[in-house]
Amino acid sequence: MAIALVFNPGSNSLKFELLELDEKQHTASQATKLASAALDDIGKDTKLSVYRGREIVSERDADVADMQSAVRAALGWLREQDELSHKLKQLTFTAVRVVHGGSKYKSAVRVTENVRSDIAELEELAPLHNKSSLDILDALAEELSGIPAFATFDTVFHHTLPEKAWRYPIERETADRHGIRKFGFHGVSHRYMLEHYAYTIGKRPDELSLVTLHLESGSSACAIASGRSVDTTMGFTPLEGLMMGSRSGSIDPAIVPYLMQKESKSGEEILTLLNKRSGLRGIAGGSLDTRELVKRSDPEAKLALEMFSYRVRLAVGAYLAALGKAEAILFGGGIGEDSPWLREGVCAGLGGWGLELDHEANRSIAGMVRISTKGSRLQAWAIPAEEGLQIAHECMLALMKD
Amino acid sequence: MAIALVFNPGSNSLKFELLELDEKQHTASQATKLASAALDDIGKDTKLSVYRGREIVSERDADVADMQSAVRAALGWLREQDELSHKLKQLTFTAVRVVHGGSKYKSAVRVTENVRSDIAELEELAPLHNKSSLDILDALAEELSGIPAFATFDTVFHHTLPEKAWRYPIERETADRHGIRKFGFHGVSHRYMLEHYAYTIGKRPDELSLVTLHLESGSSACAIASGRSVDTTMGFTPLEGLMMGSRSGSIDPAIVPYLMQKESKSGEEILTLLNKRSGLRGIAGGSLDTRELVKRSDPEAKLALEMFSYRVRLAVGAYLAALGKAEAILFGGGIGEDSPWLREGVCAGLGGWGLELDHEANRSIAGMVRISTKGSRLQAWAIPAEEGLQIAHECMLALMKD
Repeated sequence: MAIALVFNPGSNSLKFELLELDEKQHTASQATKLASAALDDIGKDTKLSVYRGREIVSERDADVADMQSAVRAALGWLREQDELSHKLKQLTFTAVRVVHGGSKYKSAVRVTENVRSDIAELEELAPLHNKSSLDILDALAEELSGIPAFATFDTVFHHTLPEKAWRYPIERETADRHGIRKFGFHGVSHRYMLEHYAYTIGKRPDELSLVTLHLESGSSACAIASGRSVDTTMGFTPLEGLMMGSRSGSIDPAIVPYLMQKESKSGEEILTLLNKRSGLRGIAGGSLDTRELVKRSDPEAKLALEMFSYRVRLAVGAYLAALGKAEAILFGGGIGEDSPWLREGVCAGLGGWGLELDHEANRSIAGMVRISTKGSRLQAWAIPAEEGLQIAHECMLALMKD
Repeated sequence: MAIALVFNPGSNSLKFELLELDEKQHTASQATKLASAALDDIGKDTKLSVYRGREIVSERDADVADMQSAVRAALGWLREQDELSHKLKQLTFTAVRVVHGGSKYKSAVRVTENVRSDIAELEELAPLHNKSSLDILDALAEELSGIPAFATFDTVFHHTLPEKAWRYPIERETADRHGIRKFGFHGVSHRYMLEHYAYTIGKRPDELSLVTLHLESGSSACAIASGRSVDTTMGFTPLEGLMMGSRSGSIDPAIVPYLMQKESKSGEEILTLLNKRSGLRGIAGGSLDTRELVKRSDPEAKLALEMFSYRVRLAVGAYLAALGKAEAILFGGGIGEDSPWLREGVCAGLGGWGLELDHEANRSIAGMVRISTKGSRLQAWAIPAEEGLQIAHECMLALMKD
């Protein structure tokens, strides 16, 4: 058995989980969660929430100024809990999720000085994101200096993209000179859905062709052929693709210079508009939380949800055509798991593919559930994406090869 | 019977056709072509080519400096031909294709001073394109002052887009302040395909749901539900959507400011890169003509065609899902009509929709032909898009209402 401590940073938050893994486990979902918690709103009025499943079982204020002190607060809390502190003493490795691994990293790795420099260098492509992971690694080097640290990357799962998908149709020399290509993100989540689904239905991942959906405040779709990612909606950056919480996703690229000129703003300022003030928030105004938006009756909120769902439907249709044939659509991420309205809207377009929604099952918002009828030619499932389990699993595989 | 003289300007060319139409005709394709010709490379080494069908039957040099003198050269040539000059004397109306009609024009119109100002105002959104049409209208006002002039717009057919499709997921106030929305283009061609297909199979357009493809150096796909355009790949400008001859189509919008910074270039310069030096040309190097590229054996040319075909396949899949159900995919435009390799690549992804390609029929590159088997649940056709006939037909309807 191995004990892993997993850190999964968000832009302003840090999820951490203490897990027990079996070295012989086939899939991430076979691991056992000992503890699951999150520090939210790091920097001001930080809260530490402890989870059981997806329920918050306790919550308290925490004094956390930055990502490094968040790691210390996490360790402090774990050490306070009798049972957990005992397990923490047996810690085998730490595992950190890093957003950008460029085209270099094709699997999780032990964090060395070279790996650290690569992560720092790729910070330019994933501003803020990679920096958070480095801060975590710094704190771990101080606090848990004897424990090997591993990292896995959100880009790793997409290293199998064929050139027709990763190359943009822009002047080749210019693109290559600046390393502009589709990287894709959320790989940890897409791989978890694939492998957990395969495990559940008793098939090998390489026997499966699927469309997986990671739908949260950041959202992406992935086309998986015979267990390999062959296309995904996020691209050079996490701005591309689906409409998201505050990100526009794909738009006519000519809008960027047009807005710069009309608003007398820099390219960076327009990017901020597209990253922070667009998406669900930009259309509905106010919240970007779909659980809030479904309760609102104003046409803006309704339109925002319709637009969101419509764009997921287009992406699923596109990827089914890319795959030619597929077994299932997997709806993951907070919005994917919790939104019968979204799943219904997407599946309504797939009757031609033989998808028959089980409306009763689709009302469920409780964990992994098949939402298509048993006889449906194309299956659909809701599936909670457990990124923590997957991060630990991928890092354990790297540890065993190390 | 009505005689129409149609002008269809390209970025550097002018197609013109003299047509005979029946006021009672149901579809554009019922009109009779009296003459069809084009002036290419306007400004330098201009050539006047006369067509019968898609064959060039004669070609000669022409001394043409700009769009206005192109109109005069066209009229000059028509007057030289005995039979045509006789028909030209009975001319009922002239018809000009305008790229951008904004959100104002929902059908073809008689050109008045107000219409002229609108076209001029929209020039900002379609640089060069609308200007060409204005030049043509100026020349016609001088040369054929007694003849009513009509215009139809490439945006007209897409005025039925629902808000979830025409609105971009960007901050609402900012988008509305600058009129940023999806307009869509190639509407004349998409509508022609719809109506000609309906006429051919003996149905009404409003009974049909289709995906139409206009594939040329500029390319777009259109989702048609019950005879109305409900989505299309081109957007605020003709840069968005599919990969094209020299245009990138959709890319991660974050690439625009990234390239500006890395290349120390302005937004306009990056737009030029994306509009003129990308697409098939940017990947293959040299030609953007698919007829040339299929003859090349280098991996760059092969990749360019693969990327082009793959992106069409994604769009068709997306629009089939948007429609939920559809009767047929129509492949139009020069590349759509002439490229068995492309149609095969696209249809290979649609087996799940019940599309069964007739490989024998698909080898044909001669006019309108069904390329799916008779029993295929989803049909596919190659269909020559006759923009000239459609422009005249739409303008005749406006004349009759006038």
